[in-house]
Amino acid sequence: MALSIVRRAVRGRLRSGVRTLSAQSPAPRVFSGIQPTGIPHLGNYLGALRSWVSLQEEFGSVLYSVVDLHSITVPQDPDTLRRSVLDMTACLLACGVNPDKSCLFQQSQVPEHAELGWILSCLTSMPRLRHLPQWKMKSQSQKNEGSVGLFIYPVLQVADILLYQSTHVPVGDDQAQHLELTQDVARTFNNQYGEFFPIPRALMSNSAKKIRSLRDPLVKMSKSDPQKLATVRLTDTPDEIVMKFRKAVTDCTSEVTYDPERRPGISNLVAIHSAVSGLAPEELVRQSRGLETAQYKLVVAEAVIAHLTPIREEVHRLRGDTGFLTGVLTRGTHAAREVATPVYDAVCRMVGLR
Amino acid sequence: MALSIVRRAVRGRLRSGVRTLSAQSPAPRVFSGIQPTGIPHLGNYLGALRSWVSLQEEFGSVLYSVVDLHSITVPQDPDTLRRSVLDMTACLLACGVNPDKSCLFQQSQVPEHAELGWILSCLTSMPRLRHLPQWKMKSQSQKNEGSVGLFIYPVLQVADILLYQSTHVPVGDDQAQHLELTQDVARTFNNQYGEFFPIPRALMSNSAKKIRSLRDPLVKMSKSDPQKLATVRLTDTPDEIVMKFRKAVTDCTSEVTYDPERRPGISNLVAIHSAVSGLAPEELVRQSRGLETAQYKLVVAEAVIAHLTPIREEVHRLRGDTGFLTGVLTRGTHAAREVATPVYDAVCRMVGLR
Repeated sequence: MALSIVRRAVRGRLRSGVRTLSAQSPAPRVFSGIQPTGIPHLGNYLGALRSWVSLQEEFGSVLYSVVDLHSITVPQDPDTLRRSVLDMTACLLACGVNPDKSCLFQQSQVPEHAELGWILSCLTSMPRLRHLPQWKMKSQSQKNEGSVGLFIYPVLQVADILLYQSTHVPVGDDQAQHLELTQDVARTFNNQYGEFFPIPRALMSNSAKKIRSLRDPLVKMSKSDPQKLATVRLTDTPDEIVMKFRKAVTDCTSEVTYDPERRPGISNLVAIHSAVSGLAPEELVRQSRGLETAQYKLVVAEAVIAHLTPIREEVHRLRGDTGFLTGVLTRGTHAAREVATPVYDAVCRMVGLR
Repeated sequence: MALSIVRRAVRGRLRSGVRTLSAQSPAPRVFSGIQPTGIPHLGNYLGALRSWVSLQEEFGSVLYSVVDLHSITVPQDPDTLRRSVLDMTACLLACGVNPDKSCLFQQSQVPEHAELGWILSCLTSMPRLRHLPQWKMKSQSQKNEGSVGLFIYPVLQVADILLYQSTHVPVGDDQAQHLELTQDVARTFNNQYGEFFPIPRALMSNSAKKIRSLRDPLVKMSKSDPQKLATVRLTDTPDEIVMKFRKAVTDCTSEVTYDPERRPGISNLVAIHSAVSGLAPEELVRQSRGLETAQYKLVVAEAVIAHLTPIREEVHRLRGDTGFLTGVLTRGTHAAREVATPVYDAVCRMVGLR
């Protein structure tokens, strides 16, 4: 009896849209997504994926999504895309994402992403979206004729996060503005329909882990770098890794020091070494006293190989087991929808669509 | 055995995206939508809704949608919106839309509209959308700060139509450009992924039925006309209808003639009279010989009252039966999804999302 009164009260609050769905201080929940476009590189791994693994220990509720709806904002070959979703799933598992601790799922299999995206696009003003720098940058690579999807994808990103009433989002520097958009849209919704979405906060990744190109230490390591030697991928063979580090651009001083401002090339190698070994840069510099840069490159390559070998082997094993990967994503989809469906239903009631 | 080979072949074609899902000449299917924003007026009824009723006799497959996702591109009060969806359903049924012959459903209850909308937004270029006149017009009423939803809604309209592989779309003059966008996007998809969407054709409504404002015969009768006397709504009482026609703007010639160019006011009345009586304007002019304009206005009002009275009474009866209206929409949703789900699934396979 008492329970049914509470239920009715809760339902009433949802209908009138005056109060929040969740408790006053919502349970912490992490959301992050990664596009299924090729094998992640060392920068992705050390900058983001590795922290995904530790976040699943720190937070009780964690969702990681392979965001295929974002990847089609630029042209994709269908067979490659299908393969890439499974490859990315294999990579995430191999890096340590544990599907028993995190909900790992494919974005397009949860219809509420696109549905909430539509509703939130009606709460986002055109000037707000035009001011984001990403459209300008990305549409240039499409000869300034980018798709509507490429223009509005930040709104879908907002929906990705809010659909789970997420409280924390791991972001890099370049995504800070998109998280601000998420916060703005959440506030707009709450102001218009009543408190509902927590205002998600950024979990900034440690800037020490920002890994740079091996061919140009002034730019970030990037998947789309045309120079093959610039980027170490998680599935590179030991020979490939040795070659890439051997040819890494440094300066003409042969001593090993850590000075990112004045010696970005060698410092990037020390940073990578530090990230894979867990030792401080200063300690590594001390250990490397007497080594020439050429020798030190091989030391770093060996450390990277040692770190990546179990990951590479696990990726290869998992890629052969399509049934297992599909099963993980299917279970993830069910778990994601268990959160998404009631949230989206509540949104619809508040907006008046139900 | 033979069947399973065919099945595999069909599945193969879908996966590779090379061939069309439907037969060479797809079965005709009509789609149209109407926003749940207030009671329809005489112009809506005579220009569109009445033809919806006859189309369900002419075509074997007909879908009519109350497009609530479009209505939220401008601010809506949630309770009013909820009520308006049921009111519009009552009006459509009262006008003669037969849920046993047409699939009548609420757009937001079929997730594939928003989902396909996203995919198609990735196939629509920004310049193509910017050139549509509707954004300019509508965003002005939002102080040039229109929502992203208001900008991209033509793409959702494309998805509404293509989701059912529709072949025919009843459109007014002002929507011709949106149907062209639909045709373009269908062609783009077919070129990129293989023949799949029929190129939908316009069913132009008879221009003789274009009904004009009773206060300014130079503009269309419109829901949003600030002059209350300009617009006859389907639920207006006989007294309201008499008053509105009595005050209808005509010129200072008292004779009844039909000359839309030079005498738009009286000709609009003759056109309305013709539409509700089924008699040609010339015949009505002949019958009205000797009547003054003031007298003729009452004749037209009586004809309109006679035509609308059963509709008004049915709307009132249905509005009181919320359970019945909800039931009609629920059955419609199921029927719509039966078509939408396999189409969207095929699209996902062709694009590489499944």
